[in-house]
Amino acid sequence: MSSSESNPSPEQPEKIHLPRTSESEALKKIRHTTSHVMAMAVQKLFPKAQVTIGPWIENGFYYDFDTPEPFTEADLKAIKKEMVKIIKRDLPVIREEVSREEAKSRIEAIKEPYKLEILQDLEDPITIYHLGEEWWDLCAGPHIESTKQINPKAIELETVAGAYWRGDESKAQLQRIYGTAWETPEQLAEYKRRKEEALKRNHRKLGKELGLFIFSDLVGPGLPLWTPKGTMLKNSLKDFLQQEQLKRGYLPVDTPHIARIDLFKTSGHWQKYKEDMFPMMAEDEQAEALEQGFVVKPMNCPFHIQIYKNELRSYRELPVRLAEFGTVYRYEKSGELGGLTRVRGFTQDDSHLFVTPEQLDDEFLSVVDLTLFVFKNLQLKNFRARLSFRDPKLDKYIGSDDAWEKAEGAIRRAVEKMGMEHFEGIGEAAFYGPKLDFIFQDALEREWQLGTVQVDYNLPERFDLE
Amino acid sequence: MSSSESNPSPEQPEKIHLPRTSESEALKKIRHTTSHVMAMAVQKLFPKAQVTIGPWIENGFYYDFDTPEPFTEADLKAIKKEMVKIIKRDLPVIREEVSREEAKSRIEAIKEPYKLEILQDLEDPITIYHLGEEWWDLCAGPHIESTKQINPKAIELETVAGAYWRGDESKAQLQRIYGTAWETPEQLAEYKRRKEEALKRNHRKLGKELGLFIFSDLVGPGLPLWTPKGTMLKNSLKDFLQQEQLKRGYLPVDTPHIARIDLFKTSGHWQKYKEDMFPMMAEDEQAEALEQGFVVKPMNCPFHIQIYKNELRSYRELPVRLAEFGTVYRYEKSGELGGLTRVRGFTQDDSHLFVTPEQLDDEFLSVVDLTLFVFKNLQLKNFRARLSFRDPKLDKYIGSDDAWEKAEGAIRRAVEKMGMEHFEGIGEAAFYGPKLDFIFQDALEREWQLGTVQVDYNLPERFDLE
Repeated sequence: MSSSESNPSPEQPEKIHLPRTSESEALKKIRHTTSHVMAMAVQKLFPKAQVTIGPWIENGFYYDFDTPEPFTEADLKAIKKEMVKIIKRDLPVIREEVSREEAKSRIEAIKEPYKLEILQDLEDPITIYHLGEEWWDLCAGPHIESTKQINPKAIELETVAGAYWRGDESKAQLQRIYGTAWETPEQLAEYKRRKEEALKRNHRKLGKELGLFIFSDLVGPGLPLWTPKGTMLKNSLKDFLQQEQLKRGYLPVDTPHIARIDLFKTSGHWQKYKEDMFPMMAEDEQAEALEQGFVVKPMNCPFHIQIYKNELRSYRELPVRLAEFGTVYRYEKSGELGGLTRVRGFTQDDSHLFVTPEQLDDEFLSVVDLTLFVFKNLQLKNFRARLSFRDPKLDKYIGSDDAWEKAEGAIRRAVEKMGMEHFEGIGEAAFYGPKLDFIFQDALEREWQLGTVQVDYNLPERFDLE
Repeated sequence: MSSSESNPSPEQPEKIHLPRTSESEALKKIRHTTSHVMAMAVQKLFPKAQVTIGPWIENGFYYDFDTPEPFTEADLKAIKKEMVKIIKRDLPVIREEVSREEAKSRIEAIKEPYKLEILQDLEDPITIYHLGEEWWDLCAGPHIESTKQINPKAIELETVAGAYWRGDESKAQLQRIYGTAWETPEQLAEYKRRKEEALKRNHRKLGKELGLFIFSDLVGPGLPLWTPKGTMLKNSLKDFLQQEQLKRGYLPVDTPHIARIDLFKTSGHWQKYKEDMFPMMAEDEQAEALEQGFVVKPMNCPFHIQIYKNELRSYRELPVRLAEFGTVYRYEKSGELGGLTRVRGFTQDDSHLFVTPEQLDDEFLSVVDLTLFVFKNLQLKNFRARLSFRDPKLDKYIGSDDAWEKAEGAIRRAVEKMGMEHFEGIGEAAFYGPKLDFIFQDALEREWQLGTVQVDYNLPERFDLE
């Protein structure tokens, strides 16, 4: 059983991560059509630009273009102007179903090779959406009926960012234009107000203003260096938590940041989690080939297991609760890094409890109680608990049905006993056991996962614990 | 200026590291001749064994042999018996000077290719030492006159260990027999008593008995995992020191354990210290070739410089004193690891003080004062301070003569003001500045370096600090 966040959630940095408002289907269609209007405007002004994909997203839309020159601020203004012209012409948005061969020959006629690649992945029926008679793209829809349904005063082009074709860093770099689109100018104004608020509360900006941490190009992206103020703050949090852990029978341990690859082969991380680990340190090519090097740790679990396993343990010693403020390193893609919310090095308040099946209920409850104690003292209030259970239809889980039912029962009972607001996430369990995740809403109604309590049937087996 | 041990001293693990007694020249000769007697005995019993080198050492002697089978305990007994026979025959030890050609032809006659390699490195005159008429080796001496001067009751063969030819892991593995030799049986008895004491006080044995730390094969050699008791002990020391640092105006910082290789290229560690660093983590071969990967840090200095450098600093802000309990990793050879005295991962109480030339005297004194405060509170008493100064005859130092004189003056004044027992180590300075090293004697009169205060003119220049 382990607490603290062991697996980062795959959400994007907070750049455009604003509250998920209940967007109407109509609004989604408006955003989708606005993205087509933008692509048409771009190709009118920049005939060499190739379009790739352009979906609606939270708050707006984007389109990715392959273009010889990056777009400038001035280009965005010209594109917006062109879009307004298109909107005012009230072009009809027409859906057409075509055969694969027909689609292929039309694409070849306009020489847009990206569309050919997209076509290969599409399932039948192939549909095309036209803007009047001048522009079309492969698209599954849905769209509004006519460009006039877009209010030119409720849309805006926001930023240009680099993006790789199919998100693959080895492929062509594209130019992505982000835009926002709403039904009314009032909605747009409200969105802009919220965005401004979010920027004000941006922790990267705050961190810099308060002087809590810095980043250094020489040290590398995603690796914060804590300044004196930040270190004191971090140490206060650590001391507060450590005092409480000691009171509750947790034993502190301190383990290295690197280990032989064998440790992570035994734990299974090297097989299942390698992509998220920093590459191996190998002395020479032979060691590399034999995978005999050292790696920096992405998780503390296997180390705590070594300490547990070092002694002959009697049944009566359990539970053993090992706790560490363990700094771990994960090789997040540089494009996914975001301030302190997605980093390559971070310190977990990470505990591993070794318990008998009979102790599971009580111990799970006590971990939840400690977690709530911390939230309460830090005045973190706005959260719900997600009961991340297995999907009984799937076959990917290890451990017996009986063990799963007991563990899920323990989680449910703990949550009910504590009277927490909660919901079930069927299929959200790890393959090695169910977990309880704490999902918070921040002041801007953005959601974040802070902390998790997990039951693990896998590692004890892999490391032969008894 | 930095405190704490930045450069591990090149001493061997404590296996046979007993107090350096004032050994007479006579005793050294006895040990040297006893090693020859042992080599002769080995070649009598194992005619296929080739001898390589065999010096006298602290407490005794050793000889390295190339032999098809490792020596067993029973072999050692037989060798000892044979040695006693040789001693009792009272063979004269005869020095002979020969020409290089003569030496070569004699070596070829007995087919000992190691001796040919040794001969190449010898300077003229070439000397040979004979034991009677039966055995000889290339040797510079000196030796006693006859084997009868060895007291068979004052010698003993101790252990067999693997050793590489010329200490090079890529070369042949040899068998090294360690022995001890004294003038009288009483001296031997006293040596054995001290050795037993040392084993009793062996911190690896104590650490295990007290349950302070463990090692794990899966994690790797030299990487201690601190158990709950050890972690609490370590944390108490840390808290004690941190409190005192805060009182004295040190600011805590917290920096990553890994960084891009560029950081260490800028600091110069990659160029000068690469052998002692863990290998680079590289994503692929290209990154490896371009040296663009990450490395785990062997030192904290460049990180503290990043934090210092992040802000525009005014002259009036100085001194800035940054302190970290920074865990660093160094790729010590596995044969050199010894318990906690020589490890691959350890936590330094590491501080860097950024000072003006005018502040050097006062700040150096205050670091020494903090160091002495810590020693006093931990009841660490038996030490001398080594003033590690440059050797004015050498040309390897950076920084002006004037700067060196000022820094060495500051060190001397601090030591005199504090009334410490001290001695000068001319030529013991780092190339980047002079330092003050604290050399302790433990209960067994073994010497250890604990802590160092250094002046550094190099890194501020490399990182362009102002």
